[in-house]
Amino acid sequence: MSLEKVCIIGSGNWGSAIAKIVGTNTAVHSDQFEPIVRQWVFEEQIDGRNLTDIINTEHENVKYLKGIKLPENVVAIPDVVKACEGASLVVFVVPHQFLKGVCEKMKGHLAPNARAISLIKGLEITAEGTRLFSEEITRILNIPCAALSGANIANEVAMEKFCESTIGCQNMEDGMVFKKLFNTPYFRISVIQDHVGVQLCGALKNVVAVGAGLSDGLGHGSNTKAAIIRLGLMEMRKFGQTFFGDAVQTETFFESCGAADLITTCNGGRNRKVAEAFVQTGKPIEQLEEELLNGQKLQGTLTAQEVNEFLSARSMQKEFPLFNTVYRIIYEGLSPEAITAEI
Amino acid sequence: MSLEKVCIIGSGNWGSAIAKIVGTNTAVHSDQFEPIVRQWVFEEQIDGRNLTDIINTEHENVKYLKGIKLPENVVAIPDVVKACEGASLVVFVVPHQFLKGVCEKMKGHLAPNARAISLIKGLEITAEGTRLFSEEITRILNIPCAALSGANIANEVAMEKFCESTIGCQNMEDGMVFKKLFNTPYFRISVIQDHVGVQLCGALKNVVAVGAGLSDGLGHGSNTKAAIIRLGLMEMRKFGQTFFGDAVQTETFFESCGAADLITTCNGGRNRKVAEAFVQTGKPIEQLEEELLNGQKLQGTLTAQEVNEFLSARSMQKEFPLFNTVYRIIYEGLSPEAITAEI
Repeated sequence: MSLEKVCIIGSGNWGSAIAKIVGTNTAVHSDQFEPIVRQWVFEEQIDGRNLTDIINTEHENVKYLKGIKLPENVVAIPDVVKACEGASLVVFVVPHQFLKGVCEKMKGHLAPNARAISLIKGLEITAEGTRLFSEEITRILNIPCAALSGANIANEVAMEKFCESTIGCQNMEDGMVFKKLFNTPYFRISVIQDHVGVQLCGALKNVVAVGAGLSDGLGHGSNTKAAIIRLGLMEMRKFGQTFFGDAVQTETFFESCGAADLITTCNGGRNRKVAEAFVQTGKPIEQLEEELLNGQKLQGTLTAQEVNEFLSARSMQKEFPLFNTVYRIIYEGLSPEAITAEI
Repeated sequence: MSLEKVCIIGSGNWGSAIAKIVGTNTAVHSDQFEPIVRQWVFEEQIDGRNLTDIINTEHENVKYLKGIKLPENVVAIPDVVKACEGASLVVFVVPHQFLKGVCEKMKGHLAPNARAISLIKGLEITAEGTRLFSEEITRILNIPCAALSGANIANEVAMEKFCESTIGCQNMEDGMVFKKLFNTPYFRISVIQDHVGVQLCGALKNVVAVGAGLSDGLGHGSNTKAAIIRLGLMEMRKFGQTFFGDAVQTETFFESCGAADLITTCNGGRNRKVAEAFVQTGKPIEQLEEELLNGQKLQGTLTAQEVNEFLSARSMQKEFPLFNTVYRIIYEGLSPEAITAEI
């Protein structure tokens, strides 16, 4: 059996935390993986030096994960084709807007048996409907693609704080290979077959977190927030089962990618925080994105908008009252009090 | 059809918040309920006056729910027999140690068609096994008994902050009568048949909250806490399905009594807080109960002890690693770090 050649596409905060784990595990399981892990790093200049040079000499991504040492067998490469040439296991952890372009460049360069796993959160809405990022990867590269998601704040993972994560992989044998690549005593992996549910949870939880933030902004207590989290979990499941059918399993919502990630996101995180400020300041979301996120787009409100577009094309907004109410409060001037009145 | 005669057994913080709702609803639905709601109040002297007299003249339980007006049709009665005489709907909301004595006194005084509902959280462990409080009520009074539980912090309910609650009632027709008694726009009830699961959630969540508090005390982040909450939810379900069989439904854990109440309890509440202090101060639980709870017993550690006794009698501790680890950390000197290492 030839050894698996691993490459990581992406090097932000989460990509760097994952590179630490993947580099450690390929070295430990040298019977199964080639030790060298190639990481595609978008080249940037840091104080006049290439970020890739800094990573390869100091073994630290000083821009996106400062203070955490990476294993020396993780090699940063600025050219995506060189990074992925001949790879048999490809870990995607890029911002979603770069995914398509990167995949196009990678075409024809992977090993014939290559399999991918997507750590990208979110959901693409097209005219025809929703498209998961794993489907996009499969479509362009013609390789199977699993997904990993869970209650995994990157900095906490990098500091080796105990947490869990879920891999959704249709082929369980491949799933176990990915488990070996990611599982550590502090990063506990479970493998399920429902890769659709895993990705839906990662996308839709952010809409629920906006709802939780609206409730916080109104000064509602923890009963109310727990109710919103619960109703959100039910709508996430309903969305999956309505539009993806039996592929989406109830059990998935009990996994780390489901309830646990939703809880973390509704208790902390930027979606909750910006929505709270939306109520307290009365400023539009665009202005808060400027003021609080340096102009970055908030994921939860964007997803709420996309989900609304998708549901309204099917005249089904009313069947998802929490998603719908969040959308109407943020974009249609509905009073924030509706977050409890309408759901 | 004769009107339902409602009586409430108990008048603490939660009993008072519920009396406000029940009094309002019997007045609104006068086609179904007699407007007068009798409430058994354990007599106490407040500044030289009877608590029952204060409630009946000022319509406020100044000791247990200060600042909240009760509806005038709620009548406080210090004699439990007079309070329950001829009642057809009995709401139990007493501290569990009083339940048996109170039920014994009520024997033979209820209406022939009487049905009860228990709002008491916890679980009784006997030599033969566990006993739910609804079962205890049915055993002594020979009437059916439903259960109500949810993410319902009493003061927030009293202030009409939106929340949800779950009624578990084997007979759905009775369940809908109870729904009419409790449901309001800010206290949203769903009715399910699984009264066992409803009560188990209310008891076992406190053990999980102790685990969450230990994690907080160690300074672990929100990933870790979300993992503990998730694993706790899984063990709660496993406990129910192992010892109560198919009566306990997976769907119950998606209700307010399940995931929502667990989340609230693990984010706030005394079980979490005392467990956090246990790690930070190194003091034994008994001492912390003195210092932080005026000597009151902490529910979560008590339940952990009872659950451990029950499981060890069956050599099954290992199958519930979170419950078992919480017990061993609190009572057997296991290091708090085990909360992540052993689960």
